[in-house]
Amino acid sequence: MQEEKEILALNAFDRSKVSAMDAALRDAVERRLRSFGSASVLFYQEPIRMERAEGVWMFDAEGRRYLDLYNNVPSVGHSHPRVVEAIRRQAGRLNTHTRYLNDVVDSYAERLLATFPADIDHLVLTCTGSEANDLALRIAKVATGGAGFVVTETAYHGNTAAVTDVSPSARPGQPLPPHVRIVPAPEMFRAPIGDLGKRFAESVGGAITDLEQSGIGFAGLLVDTIFSSDGIYADPPGFLAPVVKLVHERQGLFIADEVQPGFGRTGAALWGFARHGVVPDIVTMGKPMGNGFPVGGVATRAALLDRFAAETKYFNTFGGNPVAAAAGLAVLDVIGDEGLIENARKIGGYVMNGLREIGNRHIQIGDVRGSGLFIGLELVRDRDAKTPAPEIASQLINRLRHRGILVGAAGPYGNTLKIRPPLCFTKDNADMFIAACDEVLREICPT
Amino acid sequence: MQEEKEILALNAFDRSKVSAMDAALRDAVERRLRSFGSASVLFYQEPIRMERAEGVWMFDAEGRRYLDLYNNVPSVGHSHPRVVEAIRRQAGRLNTHTRYLNDVVDSYAERLLATFPADIDHLVLTCTGSEANDLALRIAKVATGGAGFVVTETAYHGNTAAVTDVSPSARPGQPLPPHVRIVPAPEMFRAPIGDLGKRFAESVGGAITDLEQSGIGFAGLLVDTIFSSDGIYADPPGFLAPVVKLVHERQGLFIADEVQPGFGRTGAALWGFARHGVVPDIVTMGKPMGNGFPVGGVATRAALLDRFAAETKYFNTFGGNPVAAAAGLAVLDVIGDEGLIENARKIGGYVMNGLREIGNRHIQIGDVRGSGLFIGLELVRDRDAKTPAPEIASQLINRLRHRGILVGAAGPYGNTLKIRPPLCFTKDNADMFIAACDEVLREICPT
Repeated sequence: MQEEKEILALNAFDRSKVSAMDAALRDAVERRLRSFGSASVLFYQEPIRMERAEGVWMFDAEGRRYLDLYNNVPSVGHSHPRVVEAIRRQAGRLNTHTRYLNDVVDSYAERLLATFPADIDHLVLTCTGSEANDLALRIAKVATGGAGFVVTETAYHGNTAAVTDVSPSARPGQPLPPHVRIVPAPEMFRAPIGDLGKRFAESVGGAITDLEQSGIGFAGLLVDTIFSSDGIYADPPGFLAPVVKLVHERQGLFIADEVQPGFGRTGAALWGFARHGVVPDIVTMGKPMGNGFPVGGVATRAALLDRFAAETKYFNTFGGNPVAAAAGLAVLDVIGDEGLIENARKIGGYVMNGLREIGNRHIQIGDVRGSGLFIGLELVRDRDAKTPAPEIASQLINRLRHRGILVGAAGPYGNTLKIRPPLCFTKDNADMFIAACDEVLREICPT
Repeated sequence: MQEEKEILALNAFDRSKVSAMDAALRDAVERRLRSFGSASVLFYQEPIRMERAEGVWMFDAEGRRYLDLYNNVPSVGHSHPRVVEAIRRQAGRLNTHTRYLNDVVDSYAERLLATFPADIDHLVLTCTGSEANDLALRIAKVATGGAGFVVTETAYHGNTAAVTDVSPSARPGQPLPPHVRIVPAPEMFRAPIGDLGKRFAESVGGAITDLEQSGIGFAGLLVDTIFSSDGIYADPPGFLAPVVKLVHERQGLFIADEVQPGFGRTGAALWGFARHGVVPDIVTMGKPMGNGFPVGGVATRAALLDRFAAETKYFNTFGGNPVAAAAGLAVLDVIGDEGLIENARKIGGYVMNGLREIGNRHIQIGDVRGSGLFIGLELVRDRDAKTPAPEIASQLINRLRHRGILVGAAGPYGNTLKIRPPLCFTKDNADMFIAACDEVLREICPT
């Protein structure tokens, strides 16, 4: 419990330290707290007054620049001119709900659906990934008659009441709701035993049996296909295949949460599930979909949608409005035209190699893993014992911030750096980051 | 049951009628259905291919114009140049989450909070009204320890799983969830007996007792302060005061859903609850807040937020990003600078007088009611028996559409025209609408 609380505070601003700040920053923090109070979440021991951003760079109120390796929403680059222009143009033309026909909305739906396996041919547009996952849970319940879901133990899937229930990382210290079962994340760093796919399928199988025996019934397995909040687990490609087969045998649905890995970040394809050679029953999308314009979505099969729609009149006022669709189209255009999937693959590989290379001189680097520009750097006190070192992660994050580099942490111990820069990240950007990690680790842990 | 189904189809496109359409429209409808299937909701027996909009006017793909009396999201006028420019400017500058400090976000929070009674001094920004109500329910549950909510019988509060549970109109024919109690909407047209405020408080009191006796406990009363989906009930001002007093006596919270009446539409104040002289515990906002940019919010007291935040780590990625805040600021500016609250009051009164006046020659006009530019026109077969006439409402809506006027229906019988034009609606616009209603009613019901 105590440990959990510490982890959560890792990357976060600590309210008790306001008095140590310079006057301008203290005023800004106090101003924020006056309006947003305990619901306010701020990054860093010294929060940043951010003012503008462009490409991979963000700039604070004093003009200091920061290389962004944290933000996975502005995925094609901050303030991308093509996305901004698409938003401006459509906002000045028509911004209304989808109860009228509109070519922009239908074009976007067709473009997006064409990126999925043939089975996944229907779409519901929402405003957020949370709304998408909230809807996915209900579609799965109606389709299966079951009410139970299996998720990984440090999963995060969003912020609505229903989705918070299946997001253990958002409910620290609280008992699991009766309809939720957790399984260990599929990882080979701390438990490099046996076949990962088989092992993961076995734990999910046990959870399904438990749901069935409890009378709650099994509705589905919901996973972020790169297990971001669990600590980022991408390899070996294909490890999800056995569990998807099992889920179908047990009459449940496989829901691929692509809110984080989706839209090319893994460097292998547009969707994270593609690396595993599986076809989900439901795919949910969000964050990078509109490069910051609020838009999310659920893609699924017609039959599943029909059964849900027969019970509930679902409508989403802002969901998939023409401005969201225009932003979404611009994002798909930029990903294609700028070769961002290939860039994510190439630069992601370069970053991982570079981090592994400095790992030769820093025993605190326990593991470097990921796919494309979704990378985890796990920090340990002892590489053999693999003792998690959240305190090193915290120091690294805060010192990198002071060197003008933004990065966050993930995983159950909060000791894994979560590296997710805009997909236009370059080799030079990578060199700057790797060198800074090297230097800061030298400062923190002098040999 | 049958009746309910009919009502729901009233304003909606009927899929079985596709073959009767002209080729271009049929293609567009079939295209929409191919991507969105059974989750697609379209208006009118002949849906409209909408292309652009400006002020109170919308234009279809063939350049036909429509006077908009339906859309309450583009509340300061479609494509308002000041809002579009605010969005463009901020989207090109910085569009990120609120874990950094940012002056635009804090300025908006302060401007918005200044519009509430002093007690309501804290804010959570979300992307939609649904997310806002979803959060409000959880805040109320944590604060009271109760799990039960009281809502009106045709209420609609949004689309998440938790909010759909408290939205009877979104769950036609389904049994109420165990933690939800419904009460009749507070209205004086069909049941003009006794004191409305006292009567409404009494039914809510009965529902609270029932929740308490069932062991579920009472968390709160959630109402749209103009009862839009119930059929629009605004008068007499103050009728909510007794129920709010009662809710507090019974240790529950009063949640004012301002998603529809908020931001000046009632012509009396920025907030619908203000007409009733009450102070809510929680206020939820959405639709018109960003004039179409997806933004919503929860305003409440610090103590209530603290208790919730201690249990759940809530964060909303897109919620209140600087672009949403810039759009929200522009909306508040335009409402003030263009005197839109006063215009809603003045033109709303003019519309209601005009409709009452034509009511002298159309016995089908059973009631005209509302506040500002949120007006209900209830259609009946027989003014004395008050027999609901959804078939007349449907004909009126579809014929007005063919005359270039957009309007929708509401209420348990679907026989109440829901009149909610952009707040920049003029006397000339009103004259056009009133004359068209007069003429169409003459066509439908020749005397």
